[in-house]
Amino acid sequence: MALVDRLQSDHYLIPLPVALEDSMHGTMTGFEVITVRVTDVDGATGVGYTFTCGVNGGAIHYILSCEMAPLVQGREAEHIEAIWKDLWWGFHYGGRGGPTVLALSAFDMALWDLKSKRSGLPLWNILGGYDPRVPCYAGGIDLHLGPEDLVAQTHENIAKGHRAIKMKVGRDRLPEDVARMGAVRDAFGADLTLMADANMKYTVDGAIRAARAFRDFDLAWFEEPIPPDDPAGHYRVLTEGGIPIASGENLRSLWEFRTAIEGGVTFPEPDVTNCGGVTPFMKIARLAEAFHLPVTSHGAHDITVHLLAACPNRSYLEAHGFGLENYIETPLRVEEGVVRAPDTLGHGIVFDWERLEGLRL
Amino acid sequence: MALVDRLQSDHYLIPLPVALEDSMHGTMTGFEVITVRVTDVDGATGVGYTFTCGVNGGAIHYILSCEMAPLVQGREAEHIEAIWKDLWWGFHYGGRGGPTVLALSAFDMALWDLKSKRSGLPLWNILGGYDPRVPCYAGGIDLHLGPEDLVAQTHENIAKGHRAIKMKVGRDRLPEDVARMGAVRDAFGADLTLMADANMKYTVDGAIRAARAFRDFDLAWFEEPIPPDDPAGHYRVLTEGGIPIASGENLRSLWEFRTAIEGGVTFPEPDVTNCGGVTPFMKIARLAEAFHLPVTSHGAHDITVHLLAACPNRSYLEAHGFGLENYIETPLRVEEGVVRAPDTLGHGIVFDWERLEGLRL
Repeated sequence: MALVDRLQSDHYLIPLPVALEDSMHGTMTGFEVITVRVTDVDGATGVGYTFTCGVNGGAIHYILSCEMAPLVQGREAEHIEAIWKDLWWGFHYGGRGGPTVLALSAFDMALWDLKSKRSGLPLWNILGGYDPRVPCYAGGIDLHLGPEDLVAQTHENIAKGHRAIKMKVGRDRLPEDVARMGAVRDAFGADLTLMADANMKYTVDGAIRAARAFRDFDLAWFEEPIPPDDPAGHYRVLTEGGIPIASGENLRSLWEFRTAIEGGVTFPEPDVTNCGGVTPFMKIARLAEAFHLPVTSHGAHDITVHLLAACPNRSYLEAHGFGLENYIETPLRVEEGVVRAPDTLGHGIVFDWERLEGLRL
Repeated sequence: MALVDRLQSDHYLIPLPVALEDSMHGTMTGFEVITVRVTDVDGATGVGYTFTCGVNGGAIHYILSCEMAPLVQGREAEHIEAIWKDLWWGFHYGGRGGPTVLALSAFDMALWDLKSKRSGLPLWNILGGYDPRVPCYAGGIDLHLGPEDLVAQTHENIAKGHRAIKMKVGRDRLPEDVARMGAVRDAFGADLTLMADANMKYTVDGAIRAARAFRDFDLAWFEEPIPPDDPAGHYRVLTEGGIPIASGENLRSLWEFRTAIEGGVTFPEPDVTNCGGVTPFMKIARLAEAFHLPVTSHGAHDITVHLLAACPNRSYLEAHGFGLENYIETPLRVEEGVVRAPDTLGHGIVFDWERLEGLRL
């Protein structure tokens, strides 16, 4: 047990080597990373982070630096549930979503890192301990790629150790998506696990039409077919489209996940950097278990591998680097479609702070 | 038609003369006000604002000043639906709630002010024009007041012209709330319109128990009995508690309102400063109409009177000053329980910028 001494937050922009594209976020040229370091009175430190696709990062940094930091100084760092509840309700009016929850996510992650380091355990162990070997998939941001380039990218991903692939869909002309998907399935056969992600592009009827057009390609799931705020719509897409539905990267609380799951999301997909942190991520995973559902993930695979390694109902981990792996001491390696949660203390992510310095905003 | 030339945002803290208290936000000593002024290339200006109960304001100010301002420069100021949609989706990842939506609300309000000024109409007229006379109620933040003080406060509010009163409930001991409510009903009789607001204090079962205990006091509505993210819970409170349910000050989009209304909220209560602005407020009001429901409001009565004056299904306007009226040229006056939307161009709120300067953060 030790009190929080100080909290430091930093804000960086990691440029992408090549601009990426999906159906709703348009062209992305860089990701913001907002880090937070919590130091307790004994000098032990926990590290957390969150990211955005290019906006809202300054607000997150402001909330962490100017509003949360003074509130948590002197609090017992290991009473994470108590701190989390106080921050959730203390920031609820004007918060309860958006940059506030991304800030809380990063801070909560740092507290869990600190706690597990202090207790001498790797994060995946302190969270429950199921199996450090977690199946993963390559999450491509590749709506701009035609059939040939998609096949080439998939060859590259398989060469890197992947056995499961997620591709973007949501072109204005559905037959183009069908051709892109068909090319991948044709080239790699039935053993490749394949997912598709529409990034909320469709109307409900449009999503049903797309799901039916994709049905022959044996998708593991159809991700974010429609915006996240439509439980009744998800139910229609699931039951009329006939493909499992993943959603969650745009949900910001345990309670939003409950409504989504009751609607028709069969692959809940929390992102630990934006659902409120490790604390709610684990509750969402257990909620999914209560509904006999798997849990998958969005982004931040370096930390999320620990969380899914603590869940008996874990599905695939998304491996989705936007360049952050170049600023981490020991990035995860994929082998035969699996990544292993490290046995270092805490989450084991060691940032190269000196190199990050050049990217400070 | 005229292009946006520039956007200026400012951040103030308005201290409360006396600290206020409700069941979930604790003690409040001041409200942050974040203003935004949009100027078009012709030099015409629209003004908007949002507020918080003391946190998240810096993030709102940052988003308006540093992120939204450069994005909207050069846009056609009167194409509000187009700007709104682009900002909603442009800020969706990391946004879709929290400070981002409060920033968008203030900006959207400024655009509507500009548009109605340019068209030579008061805001309530350009939004549809129903009836400028809007019934209102005094929204007290008075959980700390016992029966006698509550009665005294109500006398003061009636002397100010009010005929409807909302009181806070949610003390740890329900009998205290019953005694407070009973004292008000006893003192003022059946003609006083009375509402109660629990600020999300209760569990579902606790809210049903409270609603039943309040039933004899003929409440117009029971506001925020439980947290906003529980549609099934609202249905139980409504049907088992037996009192109409108001909720909305903590909902941040048209889509959250739809889910809430389908759940069991019978008095949708959007706040134009946090639901996304005038644009979604009016859609929420029309959605309520589609469900044969009234629409009420939260906060910001100086602008909201225009919005409800454009709605045939308008219920009571909340008159809830936190001191902002001291920095406005012509604050609204209540007469016989009614306020009148002014016939000035735009919303007619003229801030005293010089006096506000002393409160800048």
